[in-house]
Amino acid sequence: MLILTPLPHIPHVQAGDDLLSLVLAGLATADLRLQAGDVLVLAQKIVSKAEGRLVNLESITPSARAQAVAAEVDKDPRLVELILSESTAVSRHGKGVLVVRHRLGFVSANAGIDRSNVQQDPAQEWVLLLPEDPDQSAADLRQRLFEATGTAVGIVITDSHGRPFRQGTVGVAIGVAGIPALWDRRGETDLYGYTLRHTTVGTADEIASAASLLMGQAAEATPIVHLRGLCLPPQNGRAADLIRPAEQDLYA
Amino acid sequence: MLILTPLPHIPHVQAGDDLLSLVLAGLATADLRLQAGDVLVLAQKIVSKAEGRLVNLESITPSARAQAVAAEVDKDPRLVELILSESTAVSRHGKGVLVVRHRLGFVSANAGIDRSNVQQDPAQEWVLLLPEDPDQSAADLRQRLFEATGTAVGIVITDSHGRPFRQGTVGVAIGVAGIPALWDRRGETDLYGYTLRHTTVGTADEIASAASLLMGQAAEATPIVHLRGLCLPPQNGRAADLIRPAEQDLYA
Repeated sequence: MLILTPLPHIPHVQAGDDLLSLVLAGLATADLRLQAGDVLVLAQKIVSKAEGRLVNLESITPSARAQAVAAEVDKDPRLVELILSESTAVSRHGKGVLVVRHRLGFVSANAGIDRSNVQQDPAQEWVLLLPEDPDQSAADLRQRLFEATGTAVGIVITDSHGRPFRQGTVGVAIGVAGIPALWDRRGETDLYGYTLRHTTVGTADEIASAASLLMGQAAEATPIVHLRGLCLPPQNGRAADLIRPAEQDLYA
Repeated sequence: MLILTPLPHIPHVQAGDDLLSLVLAGLATADLRLQAGDVLVLAQKIVSKAEGRLVNLESITPSARAQAVAAEVDKDPRLVELILSESTAVSRHGKGVLVVRHRLGFVSANAGIDRSNVQQDPAQEWVLLLPEDPDQSAADLRQRLFEATGTAVGIVITDSHGRPFRQGTVGVAIGVAGIPALWDRRGETDLYGYTLRHTTVGTADEIASAASLLMGQAAEATPIVHLRGLCLPPQNGRAADLIRPAEQDLYA
């Protein structure tokens, strides 16, 4: 049995807020005591905000390249400047669409830069970048949770990505600690003793999608979800494990 | 709170087996009584098997085209014949890889045709095709469950798909009934009253991924998972809603 519990009453997060305190307070409110093997899933937005990754578009001067791309995709040149500066390559672009390979390796729209759920002063335009190094953010939080509670848990930091071929965004893992991100089950046997040949599972992405069902995207947002009941091998993966190298990607 | 419970002791499924009976027996064993809003997630394999979608490769005579493609991708020409006959187009191919657009619309490796978890007579080579019409299979099961229990539940039939850009397979929905497959949240407001502009969520895919965490891929496989605790709008979607039309796909 798998039980996912959204931690209630997580306050709006500001730059400099301590995620450890937020998690511990949320667990206490939910009357949850951590157990080994539990996984805590955090929405990227609160990690980014705590790390001070809000940027005021008024502070950005777009380069000539950003202006040219912005004209093609019909977006704010200052936003495009930020998207390009967070990326290593443009994957696809079109009217209203700019899909890039983020410097962290994954391919997504707008380099994960988001305008929604960013507290707005009407006179200013703020956007939120992804955390600098979400695998490290996850590892740090895991270590501090262990020091505070004596319990080793898994951490997954999630974002919502669109996908080729399929409509709708789904939760994916952009930061992982304390669990395998990618679970290699090749060599195990199936129900009939037939050896599995191609089965490598994106376990951390599946966890991100499961938690995303509870996080919502809108006003009822609950940015931290506690998950209990998974039996995972004791591996310390990283979200970077989930990135398919461009040279091995038939769709790159 | 979201609770996922694998139904225990589901027997090996044979052609002609009644999925309704399997589900009802599994619910009874798990001591679960269905409630409105519950979702039952079924692995494609048991639906396909019940529908008699096993094919003996010895019965297949590959066409000239299948033989040519098989030589390029280094696969059994009889398997390639089946893959092509289940597909409308080849998306990408390479040594050991044949990614097609399935006749149901989604893009996946080998048209979802699977050799693993198919009971093997060593003298014969059986493979398992996807259900003929998994949205209809889901709708039929939902209707029969309603007639048997008086309770309207959601049904999701899942498969595991690889993905461009990302390593590892994840559970996706190939059949849906009684819930939205794609949840269009555009027009809702976020935490700060900012209108969500691009948020259409692949809810049924997220449910498939969540259940896939419990289904496993190997010897402990549990092909039916009961899910309780989601608050979804009362829409009757289809997995077909999740398919991005090829002409709108930047990666087609």
